[in-house]
Amino acid sequence: MAKINTQPPRGTRDFFPEDLRLRAWLFDIWREVAQRFGFEEVDAPIVEHAELYMRKAGEEIVNQLYHFELHDRHLALRSEFTPSLARMVMARQGALRWPIRWFSIPQCWRYERMTRGRRREHYQWNMDVWGEPGVAAEAELIAAAFAAMDAMGLAAGDVRMRVNSRALLEETLRERFLGDHPEAFEPLCVVIDKLDKIGADAVVDQLADPAGAIRLAKPDALDVVALLGVGSIEEARKSAPSGSSALADLERLFTLLEGYDVADRVVFDASVVRGLAYYTGIVFEAFDTGGKLRAVCGGGRYDRLLESLGGKPVPAVGFGFGDAVVGELLGEKALLPELPRKLDAVVFPFGDTERAEAQALASNLRLQGKAVELVLGHVKPKRALADADRAGAQRIYLIGPDELSRGVARVRELRSGEERDEPLPARKD
Amino acid sequence: MAKINTQPPRGTRDFFPEDLRLRAWLFDIWREVAQRFGFEEVDAPIVEHAELYMRKAGEEIVNQLYHFELHDRHLALRSEFTPSLARMVMARQGALRWPIRWFSIPQCWRYERMTRGRRREHYQWNMDVWGEPGVAAEAELIAAAFAAMDAMGLAAGDVRMRVNSRALLEETLRERFLGDHPEAFEPLCVVIDKLDKIGADAVVDQLADPAGAIRLAKPDALDVVALLGVGSIEEARKSAPSGSSALADLERLFTLLEGYDVADRVVFDASVVRGLAYYTGIVFEAFDTGGKLRAVCGGGRYDRLLESLGGKPVPAVGFGFGDAVVGELLGEKALLPELPRKLDAVVFPFGDTERAEAQALASNLRLQGKAVELVLGHVKPKRALADADRAGAQRIYLIGPDELSRGVARVRELRSGEERDEPLPARKD
Repeated sequence: MAKINTQPPRGTRDFFPEDLRLRAWLFDIWREVAQRFGFEEVDAPIVEHAELYMRKAGEEIVNQLYHFELHDRHLALRSEFTPSLARMVMARQGALRWPIRWFSIPQCWRYERMTRGRRREHYQWNMDVWGEPGVAAEAELIAAAFAAMDAMGLAAGDVRMRVNSRALLEETLRERFLGDHPEAFEPLCVVIDKLDKIGADAVVDQLADPAGAIRLAKPDALDVVALLGVGSIEEARKSAPSGSSALADLERLFTLLEGYDVADRVVFDASVVRGLAYYTGIVFEAFDTGGKLRAVCGGGRYDRLLESLGGKPVPAVGFGFGDAVVGELLGEKALLPELPRKLDAVVFPFGDTERAEAQALASNLRLQGKAVELVLGHVKPKRALADADRAGAQRIYLIGPDELSRGVARVRELRSGEERDEPLPARKD
Repeated sequence: MAKINTQPPRGTRDFFPEDLRLRAWLFDIWREVAQRFGFEEVDAPIVEHAELYMRKAGEEIVNQLYHFELHDRHLALRSEFTPSLARMVMARQGALRWPIRWFSIPQCWRYERMTRGRRREHYQWNMDVWGEPGVAAEAELIAAAFAAMDAMGLAAGDVRMRVNSRALLEETLRERFLGDHPEAFEPLCVVIDKLDKIGADAVVDQLADPAGAIRLAKPDALDVVALLGVGSIEEARKSAPSGSSALADLERLFTLLEGYDVADRVVFDASVVRGLAYYTGIVFEAFDTGGKLRAVCGGGRYDRLLESLGGKPVPAVGFGFGDAVVGELLGEKALLPELPRKLDAVVFPFGDTERAEAQALASNLRLQGKAVELVLGHVKPKRALADADRAGAQRIYLIGPDELSRGVARVRELRSGEERDEPLPARKD
């Protein structure tokens, strides 16, 4: 028969043992940091009803949904975890004791045009706090994101977190530009989010597009884009409406970040809005300070999401931290660890006569928690030694006719070459 | 807005924290046993090209494929891991050193009619050995499956492994019944696999169906079904073709299983053929001895799979061990563990004045590897204590104005009620 295509579908990955070890290393860091912060792990199906993801603000993530009809159902591979999380919280809304701190490491899918280094799936660490309205939650989450970067070996100067307040932007824009159509704010954020990618002129054109959802006058569109250039809290204070609670929250967040000793890794940036429509308050995005890569992680407050899905309102804030960009960054900084296979011992019976003893010895070592490879086929001692060495085993137990007659295994330490005899376990028969 | 459906798609599961802890417990056992046996973890995308799963023998698993067209591609959610594994092995066939021992814990999907206790997704531990033609590989795998059951707390008598040889069945049937159309053997196995479910009469009807793929004469179909009643090696020996290498393999496997001290948990059963077309040699299935549940795990040798996909032939053997049936069995035996949330400490600042110290203390404890929940909102001490107790925390650190002025936290051990002061970490400012 013709050979099948041995590659996985375009934009997806296989994980061979060395890839899987790296993934496990990353997941372990995420999981350990989350647990140190007192978060509990959750998960949801990778296939959801497509309607869960459908929103009207023109977000890229909705346009790139992996969705399909199956047996008259409209289903989708999850593109992000937050909608599933909202569904789960809503299902138990009456029984939960707030706040809840949940994390997950879902695989998420986006059907996007393939360009270099982009894939259609990635794993994304999600950390979310539900039921806490104050920015202490945001501070805790930002501290956790940095704790993970620290655990990966990144230096304090390698990644900068840019923070903004959508609530502050909303107050300002509604007061000055959106008085007659406040519903334009969400699609406006989706457009603003593309600033870095498409440039200021294109953003102005989209904001002023008379056929679009926002329809600002051209001078107003220019003013909005100018507002996004604000790069410090001091400046932001000047343009904020007087008595702004959003500004007070932002200032309080920066104070709280000092308590975690990460304030010098965080900057205010009025252009950060995030490309998802549901954010309502603080938003944040971490970038490599080299400025070469997309966001390492990002998140924010989404206090109205549950309401928009028909639930009772619950304040919520969270972030997503993908494996792709941080993988690139770690690679660039030579911080991806060497992760050899963990193998304590190889047990090698010279022939069938010694196999039962070899099995019993392997079983014994395994019950002690050791990782033990038992040689299964008929190979020469030289080949068994070479294989054990190549596999990175610590030692090999050789059992030949002579060893069997003496009731021992010959143990060779593969690093030092030292050899000794060890008694074989007693046979039960 | 109308409330969305808060349930996951039919046949799928959410994992709330207590569900996730149980899943993690099971995955840890699988992973640890696999590593003790010297197996390396791999993974592949949950979405594959649908053609990878398409085979002609009428298997249930192919009929239940979750497949869909997307942007002119025919894709499918994986229904089993073996085809992805074969694809991965084929992609590196020239570079691998045999044998390889790989395991994985994929989620697999089947679009099947929903009956009680059946789902459309499950997690399935896969252990596979590629490149070893001898039954020492089968013995090692069966030993690993039992090691996992032992680690779950199941008793030696709780599960019985039924073993057969498709090769032996094939030799016998080709000699006596399939001389003129050997290609009927694969679909014949698919039919035989349904014996327990649909009964002997229906199996005979399908084997003798003149419109089917097998088309035995009715008396032959009856003879075939009678052959399946053989329940011991001794009996099997009588009906085997003389000099059968398949019989020799089977006998050798039973001898090898003694070396692992599991021979008394394994029986010969001629009716075990497995429902997948690709098996070629030894096949095995583990059942609860109570006889109430479907197979706990099952597998076998599939030496011709790679060839059938266009690769060079490589002998291979493996098993799948799902989370669903063993979960039911553990539940029935009251062996599902109580897994409380792991939380070392709660840190509680009485108000904003103490928050920076509370953050610094929490950060310190977390750097020591402790799981620490920081109280984020403004709650009363009584509520903070009740929440900490309810969350199962070991202790709570209370920091009020008095503690702050003395530079300490009041530590209360929540089990014993003992209290003491501990100095707060030095502030950096």
